Amino acid sequence: MTLLDSTLAAIGPLDRAAMAAAQARQDLLTKPHGALGRLEAISVQVAGITGRALPHVSNKAVIVMAGDHGVVAEGVSAYPSAVTPQMVLNFLRGGAAINVLARHVGARVLVVDAGVASDIPVQPGLVVKKVAYGTANMRRGPAMTRAQAIQAVEAGIEALQAELAGGLDVVATGDMGIGNTTPSSAIVAAVTGLPVAQVTGRGTGIDGEGLQRKVAIIEDVLRANQPDPHDGLDLLAKVGGFEIGGIAGVILGAAAHRVPVVVDGFISTAAAIIAGLLAPQARDYMISGHKSVEIGHRAALEYLGLVPLVDLDLRLGEGTGAVLGISLVEAACKLLCEMATFDAAGVERRQV
Amino acid sequence: MTLLDSTLAAIGPLDRAAMAAAQARQDLLTKPHGALGRLEAISVQVAGITGRALPHVSNKAVIVMAGDHGVVAEGVSAYPSAVTPQMVLNFLRGGAAINVLARHVGARVLVVDAGVASDIPVQPGLVVKKVAYGTANMRRGPAMTRAQAIQAVEAGIEALQAELAGGLDVVATGDMGIGNTTPSSAIVAAVTGLPVAQVTGRGTGIDGEGLQRKVAIIEDVLRANQPDPHDGLDLLAKVGGFEIGGIAGVILGAAAHRVPVVVDGFISTAAAIIAGLLAPQARDYMISGHKSVEIGHRAALEYLGLVPLVDLDLRLGEGTGAVLGISLVEAACKLLCEMATFDAAGVERRQV
Repeated sequence: MTLLDSTLAAIGPLDRAAMAAAQARQDLLTKPHGALGRLEAISVQVAGITGRALPHVSNKAVIVMAGDHGVVAEGVSAYPSAVTPQMVLNFLRGGAAINVLARHVGARVLVVDAGVASDIPVQPGLVVKKVAYGTANMRRGPAMTRAQAIQAVEAGIEALQAELAGGLDVVATGDMGIGNTTPSSAIVAAVTGLPVAQVTGRGTGIDGEGLQRKVAIIEDVLRANQPDPHDGLDLLAKVGGFEIGGIAGVILGAAAHRVPVVVDGFISTAAAIIAGLLAPQARDYMISGHKSVEIGHRAALEYLGLVPLVDLDLRLGEGTGAVLGISLVEAACKLLCEMATFDAAGVERRQV
Repeated sequence: MTLLDSTLAAIGPLDRAAMAAAQARQDLLTKPHGALGRLEAISVQVAGITGRALPHVSNKAVIVMAGDHGVVAEGVSAYPSAVTPQMVLNFLRGGAAINVLARHVGARVLVVDAGVASDIPVQPGLVVKKVAYGTANMRRGPAMTRAQAIQAVEAGIEALQAELAGGLDVVATGDMGIGNTTPSSAIVAAVTGLPVAQVTGRGTGIDGEGLQRKVAIIEDVLRANQPDPHDGLDLLAKVGGFEIGGIAGVILGAAAHRVPVVVDGFISTAAAIIAGLLAPQARDYMISGHKSVEIGHRAALEYLGLVPLVDLDLRLGEGTGAVLGISLVEAACKLLCEMATFDAAGVERRQV
């Protein structure tokens, strides 16, 4: 049995008893019923994921998967592919937005080279699981083979499993890969059936003409590859990316090990679609961290039935929106565990 | 010169030079221009408020103003007024939602009795600035005198000033007062001219019949008192509350001392309307923490031109949404101060 197969087989339903116990406690806490809104719902979901009626969130990590994209040769991005390894080095030195926000919420940062187009010197904080030196140009054929797709997903599962050793109460997904809004839009268009133009945005900041070109290229990509929208591995292989497969693996690994996973923006949500195709029940383990500016993100969220925690006009990726979500997940669990009950606090209940 | 007058006189414009310097730095950081969205805007606002191009957020506090309401005798709330002091004691013991969330974000909690209808034993963490034992029933006349309105606002200014001694880089507002969505709806209806039914919600959870009665009572209140929507003190005196005046004072004190103030939900935003009437420039110092479920909150935010940071279906008050906002304000400032620049990190800029 492969790692992917055993992981998919390990993903089970949420623990309904733990959820019922968490909900029952929420209704005893010193606040009007439901007054903490989504924070209550998140605490109940985490109880169901972890199987603990009083879930404790202490060990936190963000796993940032990096990869390059052959389709960048078509001019789909405002930045050159050389920026992918440069930003990975920035992550490893602690100077990027994800580092600042991860420190703010107390999360470890793990960076995984899933398929960067150049070699990055081995160093602490970097895990090299390079499937290849970037994907192939998917305008001319599949981005990768099916075997490479499996390898990318398994890289993510292995990264998640390695993080378990240090304790892992919640994990966030992140991405780095110049050009990776292009495969993400292709995935979302393929599964939703929406016109490419409705799920394709400016990424890091291409202009109007560049956006028109990008849409035309994604249309070409889908026509040339004809991915099967019901087969997550086919979709990943034909129009995906190595870091997208890696993120799908992180999500599947988290679900298999009953760890809540906070999904970042557009690229991570495209990866979550792949994960959901491979294991529909994995959706129950997902929490959407934020809503991105990138226009295809809304359709991706709706397809998965996820409602993002914050909407702050971010469009950076790296896991930045997801780590903000980690802080809210931790807050939600602390409220459930630490608030006083009406009886313990001597507070009267409602009259009417 | 009274404390209120000197405070209003001390509120000046934002520091445009500090804002320009902060914006210039944002544009050098290792991310596409504007990719951190509202977090960038918040960092620039805080630079303008504090006059520091690299604003540091370390000392944080939430000031929770408590008061009771004579109009509760009309049956506008699902809970009895006795819950106000019971919840104040819960705050002082650390068992309420605001305590849990304040610990989570590293903020101190100060509770001020601005007009609770009973005596709360003197103890650490409680500041007694009781204007009276609850407001008068405003269905039969003004909630308080104009002198009491000034006293309530000055209680808030004094509370803010006392917190400065311990260091205060950002402050959140909070409220506790059974019945206080009723004066808040009255204030919002008065200044916006919207029908009472459009700005009145279920508060802690009254039923449909209770909501109809509450709307009718607020209509009576406005008819009986005819508050001047351009005079903040008249509005506060006729249809406000002691804790609402206190929160307005916290906001004005924060603006006068150039401290960013994160405004909580419906009650705090009604208080922010009072503050904005007394000193229009105080609006520049406000950051809306969250959007409440209470339907009048949207109109109040639009009136002030504020856009909330999060929308999590909260309807608890206490400052719970505002302290979540504190964490985002701190994150925004850390991003500005701690991220590497393109040059320092050796990352290439955009090509097109």
